[in-house]
Amino acid sequence: MDTKFNNNYPLLSQIGSPDDLKQIDVHKLPEVCAELRRFLINNLSMHPGHFASSMGAIELTVALHYVFDTPYDRIVWDVGHQAYAHKLLTGRIDSFHTIRTLNGLSGFPNPEESEYDSFIAGHASNSISAALGMAAAAKMKNENRHVLAVIGDASISGGLAFEGLNNAAASKSNILIVLNDNDMSIDRNVGSLNKYLVNITTSKSYNTFRYKTYKAMKRLHLIDEKHRGIILRFNNSVKSLISKQQNIFEGLNIRYFGPYDGHDIERIVRVFRDIKDMEGPKILHLRTTKGKGYEPAEEDPCTWHAPGKFNPETGEIIKSDSSGIMKYQDVFGKTLVELAEKNKKIVGITAAMPTGCSMTYMQKAFSKRTFDVGISEEHAVTFSGGLAKDGMMPFCCIYSSFLQRGYDEIIHDVAIQDLPVTFCIDRAGIVGEDGVTHHGAFDLSYLRSIPNMIVSSPMNEHYLRNLMYTAQQRCKHPFAIRYPRGNGVLIDWHNDFEPLEIGRGRKLSSGTDIAILSIGPIGNTVSKAIDKAAEQGISVAHYDMIFLKPIDENLLEEVCQHHSQIITVEDGTIVGGLGSAVVEWINDHGYSTRVKRLGIPDKFISQGTVKQLHSICGIGYDEILQSILDLSNAKQ
Amino acid sequence: MDTKFNNNYPLLSQIGSPDDLKQIDVHKLPEVCAELRRFLINNLSMHPGHFASSMGAIELTVALHYVFDTPYDRIVWDVGHQAYAHKLLTGRIDSFHTIRTLNGLSGFPNPEESEYDSFIAGHASNSISAALGMAAAAKMKNENRHVLAVIGDASISGGLAFEGLNNAAASKSNILIVLNDNDMSIDRNVGSLNKYLVNITTSKSYNTFRYKTYKAMKRLHLIDEKHRGIILRFNNSVKSLISKQQNIFEGLNIRYFGPYDGHDIERIVRVFRDIKDMEGPKILHLRTTKGKGYEPAEEDPCTWHAPGKFNPETGEIIKSDSSGIMKYQDVFGKTLVELAEKNKKIVGITAAMPTGCSMTYMQKAFSKRTFDVGISEEHAVTFSGGLAKDGMMPFCCIYSSFLQRGYDEIIHDVAIQDLPVTFCIDRAGIVGEDGVTHHGAFDLSYLRSIPNMIVSSPMNEHYLRNLMYTAQQRCKHPFAIRYPRGNGVLIDWHNDFEPLEIGRGRKLSSGTDIAILSIGPIGNTVSKAIDKAAEQGISVAHYDMIFLKPIDENLLEEVCQHHSQIITVEDGTIVGGLGSAVVEWINDHGYSTRVKRLGIPDKFISQGTVKQLHSICGIGYDEILQSILDLSNAKQ
Repeated sequence: MDTKFNNNYPLLSQIGSPDDLKQIDVHKLPEVCAELRRFLINNLSMHPGHFASSMGAIELTVALHYVFDTPYDRIVWDVGHQAYAHKLLTGRIDSFHTIRTLNGLSGFPNPEESEYDSFIAGHASNSISAALGMAAAAKMKNENRHVLAVIGDASISGGLAFEGLNNAAASKSNILIVLNDNDMSIDRNVGSLNKYLVNITTSKSYNTFRYKTYKAMKRLHLIDEKHRGIILRFNNSVKSLISKQQNIFEGLNIRYFGPYDGHDIERIVRVFRDIKDMEGPKILHLRTTKGKGYEPAEEDPCTWHAPGKFNPETGEIIKSDSSGIMKYQDVFGKTLVELAEKNKKIVGITAAMPTGCSMTYMQKAFSKRTFDVGISEEHAVTFSGGLAKDGMMPFCCIYSSFLQRGYDEIIHDVAIQDLPVTFCIDRAGIVGEDGVTHHGAFDLSYLRSIPNMIVSSPMNEHYLRNLMYTAQQRCKHPFAIRYPRGNGVLIDWHNDFEPLEIGRGRKLSSGTDIAILSIGPIGNTVSKAIDKAAEQGISVAHYDMIFLKPIDENLLEEVCQHHSQIITVEDGTIVGGLGSAVVEWINDHGYSTRVKRLGIPDKFISQGTVKQLHSICGIGYDEILQSILDLSNAKQ
Repeated sequence: MDTKFNNNYPLLSQIGSPDDLKQIDVHKLPEVCAELRRFLINNLSMHPGHFASSMGAIELTVALHYVFDTPYDRIVWDVGHQAYAHKLLTGRIDSFHTIRTLNGLSGFPNPEESEYDSFIAGHASNSISAALGMAAAAKMKNENRHVLAVIGDASISGGLAFEGLNNAAASKSNILIVLNDNDMSIDRNVGSLNKYLVNITTSKSYNTFRYKTYKAMKRLHLIDEKHRGIILRFNNSVKSLISKQQNIFEGLNIRYFGPYDGHDIERIVRVFRDIKDMEGPKILHLRTTKGKGYEPAEEDPCTWHAPGKFNPETGEIIKSDSSGIMKYQDVFGKTLVELAEKNKKIVGITAAMPTGCSMTYMQKAFSKRTFDVGISEEHAVTFSGGLAKDGMMPFCCIYSSFLQRGYDEIIHDVAIQDLPVTFCIDRAGIVGEDGVTHHGAFDLSYLRSIPNMIVSSPMNEHYLRNLMYTAQQRCKHPFAIRYPRGNGVLIDWHNDFEPLEIGRGRKLSSGTDIAILSIGPIGNTVSKAIDKAAEQGISVAHYDMIFLKPIDENLLEEVCQHHSQIITVEDGTIVGGLGSAVVEWINDHGYSTRVKRLGIPDKFISQGTVKQLHSICGIGYDEILQSILDLSNAKQ
């Protein structure tokens, strides 16, 4: 590290690993925290990432590495937006500027990156179950390590987290669950568990009340000093009474500690030391402030969840996009309102992502017809099934990789009953910087095998609107519409609605040498490559399938009659999607047309810009063009 | 109905619908219940079905239809083993003998069957979410109906149910959740929520205690008569103290009533009447006895969950199978113990199905290395991931259709990290009588698109054993082994282990006309059909793929070089499975071999015997033979 760095960060520059941290006097830890904050502000202002969550988790992170013996002790971070300080304390200061870039540090904990990252994080609510597995493994191997799960108050509302809690409590594991409660999911928080957490209090009046009541109870010989267990329960009961709430965790037989101020570093260190060797499952409830230590972020933590570049002095967020082109998300959001104005059956459902998926427009226009169910993808799908069963027309908007959580519910609670739920699948295909856990690589494939499903993807904003219009106007089946993260391709996104024929694609250009079949916005890249190929005298026909299922058999018939070579292009896994469907159809119908299938290859794809990753997958402009040239050469 | 029926069931014979039931005097309802029990015992002894659950739910079912205005009011049954009496009270007495047979009544509630079946049931834990959706729909349509979810104590431990509870509490819905608590899942119950339910008590000492404490509190001016809300909370707090438990439901802000004796029909009727019009979400906790009213079932409810045919007088269960052939489940269970004896890293995980999947052998032999996590498929997968991450070798055994619940966790918590979790996928393919919700139709397809996965299926017991052996001996990746419900095909199932080469199939017979590639036990049907075809002079080669992924490319090369016609046969969906993989490979490698793909067609398959349904799907003996003959004729 250079001198400037050492001067700016006198403590941080000495910390190459948690062992170094442990050498620092406990009273100096607030300074370590201050340096970490300064480092994050300075770095993330230039190298965008998740900001507010990590700012709020700094003290708890320092305390964890100060008290526990990582990586021997296991810390399982849930989601891991919160884990940037963890990366800094575990030898990744030098590479931190590469965060979320190709070949750089992951935005989430990732065991491939560091032995301190004990488990993958990206989808919420998995930490307790994973930690329990690790604790069970340690027990069987007679390894006396501590295992912790650090989970946010939004993530704990997910069904998987509850299954984990329920099993943690029933097990004899010594797992410690650290609840990082900032009263926020990525958006505002929802669900009664959240309200419950807000209401747990340790107030002065509670303590006075407890003392008086305790004495009264003693007089009545209802409790005595010997029965410590009862007294503990008693305290909790009284606490419940005062807070007008019951303690859910104690109900589940998990020892509960807190809530404590999650920014009082010395106190947290003390508490960790006090409870770390206690037997049995434990939960420590820390109250934190999302964005802590940076005023603009504290005031608007939602915007500052992942703000992009910003001016650290002024807190001004630097807008990088001046194209004037709207995001698919906003087109979805505004179109939903437009449709809902005319069709009273339409309702909107999102699972904790109203801002990210732009359900906010619907929330604002029709608050009673909009449901943010929190991090509960399974519930979102089944709830939509219930709505549809009794006559409503739900638009259930979930990110592609998170909808994997609702896969069974799509089959069982929607498709078997053939209910008209419209799944608006956001973040479909390569998502870019969020990386391996977030790419929407599998939806085309996992939806295609479900009977009754209609599976579609628009090539541009007009078709997104037309598909949404068609879904609510003429469809009585489950209807999936997938579209990617980010900007559309049209300046004028607002067309008049046109109903589409379900299962009918369209021909974009004629050509004699090769035919390309594409689905979704990747078709725009295909069009450009075709134009370039035309300059070299290669004549390529282009079809936009629009629908993967039912697939357009007339179109396929036409293509096979006129072409011996097809290229399929999709922003989804090569296994089981459009390419597979086309190959199956050709085989089943006795044609000999040869298909080159382009898409996400059968491996997990890391992070980078969408452009970089499309290129790596062979579906960037250059690669599609090259495929055309190769095929054209081979033919000659 | 005939005279004999009228004489045997004087009340039941008058009940064609819930309206008829409502005409009966409340004091006569116990007799209705007795008749229902007698009817179930007599009928299910001849026409096998789920027995013990429905026996325990009779009073609550009668009370529901007595008090509520079905089908206008919506009752959503969770799972629905419990719903046989519901079927009888809603006009299905005459057809009840057809239950679980081809074209007969479904074993679960099914909206296609009756308007009284308001939502599909088959996979646990969906009722609260579905009911919430219906309640929201009613509100928006200004329909003032009651919406109820009837859920068992095992189902409520599922993550989806918790997501439903969490959202129910936060909503302003008037949903009534009826908790049918018989302290049993299909197997014994697990998890702390269950322990919690057992401990909720309303005892005499509690009432005395409450009174005394209440007076003491009043003296201290801590509460007074005016603050009824506080008093209600106070009661709950004291109840928590006495029971050494907290009330979780009140913690979640759901009004809790109970526990009441679920067999006291008159009382339940009163309670339903009292609470049905109360505003806000409510939970009514009923204690019931699984198998109630039939002594053998009360004593051993696990065996009597679905006993098959039995002698109603003696309680003797009539064993229908005298083949001496072992079930795949038992081969799995015994083999796991055999492997675990030598390999200390092996652990077993099941999600509430230890008996069904024969994890019981492992439980008995290595109780500390066996984990029954309850109805928590998501947790089962992620927990297995945690175990594998820290060096263990988990064998996670879940039914195919239930594993759909863990689809995201397979991708996110196992496959991305390439962890050596072995998924033993039970009930793969057509399952028979359990019908549409239970067929394991999708696993080959949904697993094939996941990177790093090994996907396999044994043709017989020896290969099941060899695959399990191979998974733990030489595999460092996620490894899926799928096998069907029921009997194997060998008398002597116990071979010496042989390690298999991963991704290598085998040739069973040579032939010149056609090649058949099959995967799994359906290959035995194929073999028979090939023998028959040989009698007619048709020479068919047969390959057992063993592995779907990685697929055996050398084998495919050999087949394509020698054959222009292939048939693929799989007991799984035709969309995305073996047939698709073969067609993709042929296309990608420049062959022109034509493939006839046999498997479960792209629609939902109802119930029947496995034989009937295989036949309907075109993968029965006759149909496979016919496919061979057709292809052979077409070729000539």
